[in-house]
Amino acid sequence: MIEVDKLISGGRILKMDAEMTIIPDGSIAVKGKDIVAVGEKSQIEARYRAAEVIDAGGGIVMPGLVNGHTHVAMTCFRGMADDLPLMDWLNDYIFPAEAQNVDADLAYWGSLLACAEMIRSGTTTFCDMYIFENETAQAAKQAGMRCLLGEVLFDFPSPNFTTPAEGLAYTENLFKRWDGDDLIRIFVEPHALYTCSEPLLRDAKALAQRYDAPLGIHLLENRSERIQLEQKLGRGAVSFLRDIGLLDERLIAFHCVCMDEHDIRMFAEHGVKVIHNPESNMKLASGVAPIPEMIDAGVCVGLGTDGCASNNNLDMFQELDSAAKLHKVHRLDPVVMDARTVLETATRQGARALGMDHLVGEIKPGKKADIIIIDTRKPHLTPMYHEYSHLVYAVGGADVDTVLIGGKVVMRGRRLLTIDEYEAIERVHSIGERIKAGMKKP
Amino acid sequence: MIEVDKLISGGRILKMDAEMTIIPDGSIAVKGKDIVAVGEKSQIEARYRAAEVIDAGGGIVMPGLVNGHTHVAMTCFRGMADDLPLMDWLNDYIFPAEAQNVDADLAYWGSLLACAEMIRSGTTTFCDMYIFENETAQAAKQAGMRCLLGEVLFDFPSPNFTTPAEGLAYTENLFKRWDGDDLIRIFVEPHALYTCSEPLLRDAKALAQRYDAPLGIHLLENRSERIQLEQKLGRGAVSFLRDIGLLDERLIAFHCVCMDEHDIRMFAEHGVKVIHNPESNMKLASGVAPIPEMIDAGVCVGLGTDGCASNNNLDMFQELDSAAKLHKVHRLDPVVMDARTVLETATRQGARALGMDHLVGEIKPGKKADIIIIDTRKPHLTPMYHEYSHLVYAVGGADVDTVLIGGKVVMRGRRLLTIDEYEAIERVHSIGERIKAGMKKP
Repeated sequence: MIEVDKLISGGRILKMDAEMTIIPDGSIAVKGKDIVAVGEKSQIEARYRAAEVIDAGGGIVMPGLVNGHTHVAMTCFRGMADDLPLMDWLNDYIFPAEAQNVDADLAYWGSLLACAEMIRSGTTTFCDMYIFENETAQAAKQAGMRCLLGEVLFDFPSPNFTTPAEGLAYTENLFKRWDGDDLIRIFVEPHALYTCSEPLLRDAKALAQRYDAPLGIHLLENRSERIQLEQKLGRGAVSFLRDIGLLDERLIAFHCVCMDEHDIRMFAEHGVKVIHNPESNMKLASGVAPIPEMIDAGVCVGLGTDGCASNNNLDMFQELDSAAKLHKVHRLDPVVMDARTVLETATRQGARALGMDHLVGEIKPGKKADIIIIDTRKPHLTPMYHEYSHLVYAVGGADVDTVLIGGKVVMRGRRLLTIDEYEAIERVHSIGERIKAGMKKP
Repeated sequence: MIEVDKLISGGRILKMDAEMTIIPDGSIAVKGKDIVAVGEKSQIEARYRAAEVIDAGGGIVMPGLVNGHTHVAMTCFRGMADDLPLMDWLNDYIFPAEAQNVDADLAYWGSLLACAEMIRSGTTTFCDMYIFENETAQAAKQAGMRCLLGEVLFDFPSPNFTTPAEGLAYTENLFKRWDGDDLIRIFVEPHALYTCSEPLLRDAKALAQRYDAPLGIHLLENRSERIQLEQKLGRGAVSFLRDIGLLDERLIAFHCVCMDEHDIRMFAEHGVKVIHNPESNMKLASGVAPIPEMIDAGVCVGLGTDGCASNNNLDMFQELDSAAKLHKVHRLDPVVMDARTVLETATRQGARALGMDHLVGEIKPGKKADIIIIDTRKPHLTPMYHEYSHLVYAVGGADVDTVLIGGKVVMRGRRLLTIDEYEAIERVHSIGERIKAGMKKP
């Protein structure tokens, strides 16, 4: 018998590998931070012995979800201003509220609350862009969550830096501060082509290359951005990115709503990754990204919630449902974005989009033990014909029972083990009261 | 002091009246089945005394949601066949599975399981169309749920009747059987214009008039139905309904995806009610109903989930979220279908659409005490700026803590008090196994 630390036994294991293997009554052996074996329960239990056996109770056992694009500290602005014209929303609410309120304290507590919300809804890895990202990293570390994060960079001052050079220096400090950390990974994040000059974009790329990290950017989120960029750049945004040397496998582009066939072909040829944010695109009336076309063209697509000001929650299971349904109604085709394809964007493909597929996104020996157990013994999950259908169309975040990240149990029976959730709620409640007090009266 | 049976105290009460009154720290006095008073906690507690005080714990207290169109027994087919072309889905899966499997037993247990799911997600009234509706009524009665239901009628035989006349007789028996019941209301439901002959439609209308009940019908769910009906009827479907005398305040039309301006004007002029089913319309790629246009024209619009084969759950909070977001992205306008408007379709307007606004849809003295309490002390509901935004964009069904229907507590602290939920799960699980065994192999 081989000694391991944990056995997760008695669930339907969805490996989310390329073959989409399902093991109806399986076990996973975990040693330290890693998965060491997965297979039929009887076979695994005959070979491995563990001090701790986690009973999956016949539920679904699968890789933790990967939230490919969010701004977690924006939980503090959740529902502050909805149903408004885009420019009023940004200029009268979000930007002033950020300028007045965002500091290290807000970033830490907003992020910790977000981690509580994400763990509770089955997300184990998130990719973040905001200000004071060192505080977000500290919150993720406290929560035991895996992440890829970067300080948002633009030409104008932020509450955390004055010049672009300071923003880049802050990012470089993040690389140094978190170097070798097993949970926190850093990347470089120029905000968008309409907020970043060409020199900043080139410097950002150079920094990403120096630390062999990805580069993330908001891109072509809506039609007015597309038109504005064509005027500003004298060419298409994707052609511009190619011309200045940013169009490569390092690039992760968020949103990509207004992409034409030529853009998609260039993305596929250069190995650019895309993160799809359907609920934010719906709520902000940005449009419908041509995601089925991108997947058909061979572009790697992940899924994200975007921030809480534009969604308004971080529940990736709801996002799966919206991703599957939105493209069907938009193309009047009930076959596109089937449950399996959608689920891949939040697991294996989502991990690949972030350059983290060597770590997460599948249940496989050698990968990190980022595993969630879903309690399926509920009215709205009965009966069970197809696991993927249930996960996309019926499961909600609140059905997640147990979460492991890097072999550590961070939630068991819906009780969080790494976060004092009531403290986080109280802190963010107080921050919300302060924000309200300073708000423009509608 | 006035003696009442229950006081619900210490929550933010959303009355959902025409003025959209919110009482930040309110109380509701309940006597028997009815609300007798609502107001500031201090004022209500100074006037009313109750044996039982339900502490809302600072949560949101609001009318139970009204699911305006569903087929509850279809929980048994939840996720059986997804992501398929519409005609394959119907002809190869749903119709054969229904013909082979639907009987009184399936209808009862499928409906009871649905009641468990609906109560758990804050629905207190549902409007149902299926076969063996007497069994659905019995399940609703057992669950203590309020409903409006009718046997589906068409020209061909169903598992429950051979001729249309038998279907009408079954419906008439339902009227007699449930006459005077405080929870169960009956109406007449011809399936659709493409499945019902003109004589059946006229007979259905006569029956509805005889019992002074509404008449419900699927209408213009997708483009191919619109084209098919124009060919069959030699005119538009709405004009046909007018010509045969069905277009009046009694009529509740489900879906109404493919309506033009003229149709909408006729609906408004004749007082026809509409039930919107956005998630089903998305998943089946039916299209986007012109709901903002209907509301602008003065048409009364309610909200429904449709059945579990095309959604795949009965969570009205998810449906609210989808309704708000779908129309924004479809019209590229972030202002349409704001949170308040959407919430009205599931409460006051939803009740009016079903002809039940004298009973439910608002927190108001004289209405039935159909009340839900939402626990907002959760990460994903923090902070709180606007209650309506939270309810539409952040709350999920699993946040509902306590549910009263007609003054009776049917769920408390997420424990169901009227349904043995594990028995219902086991029964429907077994039915699912039987259905699977008889299924066409994909």
